[in-house]
Amino acid sequence: MSIEILSIGNELLSGHTVNTNASVIAQALLKAGLIVDRVTYLPDNVERLTRGIEEAIERSSFIITSGGLGPTGDDLTREIVAKIYGTPLEYDEEIARDLSKRFGAHHKGIQDQSMVPKGAKVIQNTLGTAPGFILEGKAAIFVLPGVPSQMESMLPSVCSYLESKALKKHRSETLYLCLISEQEVDPYLRELESRHPGLQIGICPSYGTLSVYFQGEDGKVLRKVRDEVEKKFQDHVYSTLDKQIELSVHQWMVRHGKTCSSAESCTGGILAARFTEHPGASDYFLGGVVSYSNHLKESALGVSSKTLETFGAVSRETVEEMVKGACKVAGADYGLATSGIAGPTGGTEEKPVGTVWVAMKTPEKIFSGLVPFKSPPKSRALIIDYSATYLLASFYRYINYNIEPFA
Amino acid sequence: MSIEILSIGNELLSGHTVNTNASVIAQALLKAGLIVDRVTYLPDNVERLTRGIEEAIERSSFIITSGGLGPTGDDLTREIVAKIYGTPLEYDEEIARDLSKRFGAHHKGIQDQSMVPKGAKVIQNTLGTAPGFILEGKAAIFVLPGVPSQMESMLPSVCSYLESKALKKHRSETLYLCLISEQEVDPYLRELESRHPGLQIGICPSYGTLSVYFQGEDGKVLRKVRDEVEKKFQDHVYSTLDKQIELSVHQWMVRHGKTCSSAESCTGGILAARFTEHPGASDYFLGGVVSYSNHLKESALGVSSKTLETFGAVSRETVEEMVKGACKVAGADYGLATSGIAGPTGGTEEKPVGTVWVAMKTPEKIFSGLVPFKSPPKSRALIIDYSATYLLASFYRYINYNIEPFA
Repeated sequence: MSIEILSIGNELLSGHTVNTNASVIAQALLKAGLIVDRVTYLPDNVERLTRGIEEAIERSSFIITSGGLGPTGDDLTREIVAKIYGTPLEYDEEIARDLSKRFGAHHKGIQDQSMVPKGAKVIQNTLGTAPGFILEGKAAIFVLPGVPSQMESMLPSVCSYLESKALKKHRSETLYLCLISEQEVDPYLRELESRHPGLQIGICPSYGTLSVYFQGEDGKVLRKVRDEVEKKFQDHVYSTLDKQIELSVHQWMVRHGKTCSSAESCTGGILAARFTEHPGASDYFLGGVVSYSNHLKESALGVSSKTLETFGAVSRETVEEMVKGACKVAGADYGLATSGIAGPTGGTEEKPVGTVWVAMKTPEKIFSGLVPFKSPPKSRALIIDYSATYLLASFYRYINYNIEPFA
Repeated sequence: MSIEILSIGNELLSGHTVNTNASVIAQALLKAGLIVDRVTYLPDNVERLTRGIEEAIERSSFIITSGGLGPTGDDLTREIVAKIYGTPLEYDEEIARDLSKRFGAHHKGIQDQSMVPKGAKVIQNTLGTAPGFILEGKAAIFVLPGVPSQMESMLPSVCSYLESKALKKHRSETLYLCLISEQEVDPYLRELESRHPGLQIGICPSYGTLSVYFQGEDGKVLRKVRDEVEKKFQDHVYSTLDKQIELSVHQWMVRHGKTCSSAESCTGGILAARFTEHPGASDYFLGGVVSYSNHLKESALGVSSKTLETFGAVSRETVEEMVKGACKVAGADYGLATSGIAGPTGGTEEKPVGTVWVAMKTPEKIFSGLVPFKSPPKSRALIIDYSATYLLASFYRYINYNIEPFA
């Protein structure tokens, strides 16, 4: 009874579009206790798309496709699926009525987008024009649009269909750690795995964080094992729910009724953007300054021109004045600041690319330090990303576990 | 002579990790004129991984795998590939020497990570421990690590191997349009396609932008057709190279020796982050203020408390004062500002979620307007993303084509 995803579109195979849809689908299924066995990208090409869908039908009981449903010429999925399942396309008056209501009776796509395979169970598209549908046969196929928001809005229908089939349920638990390496954690996990047959533990490192996934059928064992790991690596744990470490900061701040602000130079706004991505950020995040130029460091944050002249913008002295300024201008309890050289140019012998000073201010104290890169970092994206995560992780470990940051 | 990618790892199939690697590989090959025919995600499971690799060998001439090469227990790719190709793993002294030099002689992973299949051509990993390799047989297989930066550093070796095989070259051209719908562009593209056999035109909409891909074997025809499309939709075109519209703003600013700043409320730093993601941003982007709280709108941007009281933070009056303040505090020629309700809470009957005011300031004038959402936007992410793109697109069309923004 395996489940697979077919992601359809030349833009995926050419790499112009990153396949976020497959992840969103897989995560929704995982929450329902279901595991995706395979993901395949197929092109907008009649023969190869047909062959790919046919192979999937041979292999799997449930197939979820996304993409190729729109009104334009390279959208082929609906026609091909109907042909494979041996059913004609039919005009669905209800869809047509809904589309004219939402887009006007003269909308060009109505005729085309109202055609669905006979016998299909339609999944309404409340955000766009292309309806999704479920068709049963040798395999049940769920045909969804490629536009992420539209696809996502149809996932509850897919999940409730699958849940009605009483498939074997997998349980999963996760644990997110920060500022610890894969090698420090893995031997312990393998030992646990060998003690618990039927339990799978996966580990996935990102810059500064480590995601540990537990999978199995016995939810109780899973939670017990996860709790053991949590205890073992205690003060590196920041969440059992969300990979985004800023959410742990968010929850701590709201729980303690505190506020926070930011002053960013080399991270260029990514800290603020990570905070404000999440609903309710305004409950604790007051905002900040992206002081990319020296002038803004002075005019908006009150960094002294003497400090900038004497020590340079990338220095402990500047980043400490930045974090002070951020707290002051925003009226915040806590502050975070970054100033560094993200490259690829701008490095000197004394301060090479990857020299990044970070600081945090609490109501009592200011801490600052250099971001520790293991080897000379090569890319601007990595420097920005890791600097932000390192600062957030150090900050969280300080406020939550009282661990000295930047040590 | 088809090429396929195998992306290996449970974290991909569970959706915990988004598969950016497949896109990066495909884009690198596309630049070398090569098209990826299929992408498959496979799990960290001996049987299913073995079967997946064997199927790929049957199907394709060139296989690029990423993932499952690390030193931890769930890393299986190297062993399985060696077994399928019928060759033992051998200790490679050169790799061991390099690893001890970089990580210290006592590093735990050295013994394991120095084992490569006999007969394989090693691709050095200068950023991490797991070496990549190429193994020839019924299909040539390129085995790369899953860590994005490490994988990426090995792509030149893959491309130069493939280029030495003199495969049929595809040409590709792209064109990026903004603030125009798929339906307005598609009929023209289909007509062009029908006039040029052998030419494929793909179209991929994102929020606010439209990517058009041209593929074929005749580079001259491709460029001619792309130029025709460019001419037809002239003042919607912002690039032939980069999807990121902020890069077009970047280039215009640098070309004209102008500077720019930002004042963001609901976009929370994403505008600044998008500007500063790109090398050289400091040549024109001076920085900005993420004035999430009303207090910061006053203290850092000089918005008057009376304006905030009378019209509210989400209003034309406030966003215009914000953009003025951003230019003033940064000393910038141009400014961009946003203030809106990204949701999911905070909406009122008068100003529902999705009410977003944007403004731009030029040396002569201030423009402002509401972000036009087609239907009530559902997600916070979409509201933030589209607001930023809409503002950038309107700004670019004004500075480059002199088209009145927010009209």
